[in-house]
Amino acid sequence: MHANRSYFMEIKRPLLLISNDDGYQAKGIRELVEMVSDYGDVLVCAPDSARSGFSCAFSATTPLTLVCHQRYQAASGSHVEIWSCNGTPVDCVKMALAELCPRKPDMVIGGINHGDNGSVNTHYSGTMGVTIEGCMKYIPSVAFSLCDHRDDADFEPLRPLIRQITERVLKEGLPLGVCLNVNFPRLGVSGEGFSDKPSGEAERGIRDYAGVKVCRMAKGTWGNEVTKCHHPRGYDYWWMVGSYTNDEPEAEDTDNWALTHGYVAITPTQIDVTAYSAMDQIKSWQLKV
Amino acid sequence: MHANRSYFMEIKRPLLLISNDDGYQAKGIRELVEMVSDYGDVLVCAPDSARSGFSCAFSATTPLTLVCHQRYQAASGSHVEIWSCNGTPVDCVKMALAELCPRKPDMVIGGINHGDNGSVNTHYSGTMGVTIEGCMKYIPSVAFSLCDHRDDADFEPLRPLIRQITERVLKEGLPLGVCLNVNFPRLGVSGEGFSDKPSGEAERGIRDYAGVKVCRMAKGTWGNEVTKCHHPRGYDYWWMVGSYTNDEPEAEDTDNWALTHGYVAITPTQIDVTAYSAMDQIKSWQLKV
Repeated sequence: MHANRSYFMEIKRPLLLISNDDGYQAKGIRELVEMVSDYGDVLVCAPDSARSGFSCAFSATTPLTLVCHQRYQAASGSHVEIWSCNGTPVDCVKMALAELCPRKPDMVIGGINHGDNGSVNTHYSGTMGVTIEGCMKYIPSVAFSLCDHRDDADFEPLRPLIRQITERVLKEGLPLGVCLNVNFPRLGVSGEGFSDKPSGEAERGIRDYAGVKVCRMAKGTWGNEVTKCHHPRGYDYWWMVGSYTNDEPEAEDTDNWALTHGYVAITPTQIDVTAYSAMDQIKSWQLKV
Repeated sequence: MHANRSYFMEIKRPLLLISNDDGYQAKGIRELVEMVSDYGDVLVCAPDSARSGFSCAFSATTPLTLVCHQRYQAASGSHVEIWSCNGTPVDCVKMALAELCPRKPDMVIGGINHGDNGSVNTHYSGTMGVTIEGCMKYIPSVAFSLCDHRDDADFEPLRPLIRQITERVLKEGLPLGVCLNVNFPRLGVSGEGFSDKPSGEAERGIRDYAGVKVCRMAKGTWGNEVTKCHHPRGYDYWWMVGSYTNDEPEAEDTDNWALTHGYVAITPTQIDVTAYSAMDQIKSWQLKV
């Protein structure tokens, strides 16, 4: 077989493929591996550095390389391998499926992302890229994100629910073409300073989760997205930063509402982006070639 | 106002913002500008080189720059400006909206893409990234793609329908949160060699369009996605290439079916990716924190 393929290929445990967009060294992915590795063998293939905002991008023109960083047996007996790739989050999944996984994984997990992937962030998120890629390969896939961008974010409160969801998905699967986008609000005491709050990050401190809500994506918009700077050599350049506005803050069935009210938001997300509701209108145009 | 903002800002024609993922010099975008510039002023802001497969990616960590290449008045009296940006297709739209457009455009157009953006390619396509970004900004947005990857592809047969759709969308708009993904089959005589046929490219030659179909996204899968090579310095690397399989070739309501049967495929596409059909199942799990 392939020289790079994992040495645990004969073992009959479930196989979990994990990636992210913060890079293989991020705290979020490291803790995720530790949280779920007793459910099965774990193959991590994640970007060699941060790739936030990479969406479902893949590398059409970059030669890709793989590096194995770690191979170990967890206390549970599961085998864990940590690989990095110089490509996008989606490249990582494609490379792992083609070159590293001994067989089709039982589950693909993206995360734990350092930051919110609710509302329209779904479209930009590399963590969701991982999950959508898994789903497009007909593998049950879930993204976990915490509304806290800090490198040292505290992921420990997420553990029980991440374990429940992983166990459930391994047992029952998910409908074909559907993956889960799971976002956790940030816990902390009021006034601790929730400075980084794109969609849905708590306005006030949340001491404990209010519960779990199965939600829809909120309608929201990013604005003030570019900041102009002047280079010492005399030209202008711009950084992408922005501020998010929830365009339907009163809608209690949305992920943004859930997160700002202390709930964990689970948004079932689908590959099929056809706008069925608009088909009759476009048909009525009776376009001719 | 801003030094970079277009000089045609006072003029009251409709404003069309055009971008792509093949780069501002590609034949497809050049011809698109020529096809639609009599409907309004045109601002092109497109990548400085090809960015195929960039999806909705934006540049979180790259400083962005803009270059103006051309400013001219078309025969119709419309003003046209051609800009490039060193970022992704989505960056181009965000930069144009923030820094170049004198006001909110009346329409965003992605394309004309050199290659097929049907089925799951929707998720990878930078041309669709442009269109989804426009749609997320509540601007009527359309992507045009031709199932022909060649640099010198013949876009002329697309002209009448591109003009009809542009005129219609400028007049009537589109439902909020819905954009159009329009794919054209490649015309040519049988046996001319349809070597590049990802989703939906014609198996046989199509002499003329069979008509226009309003479609849904086909279910399809990319496989054999990586090709391993050996570097002269002694390490392995991989290129992303792949072959597409239509997983429901008999489904006559899909974009893939339309394209392989000579129809232009119009897929209304939505921003909301919530899988409403799966919500009850996930709720039945009764997850608790």
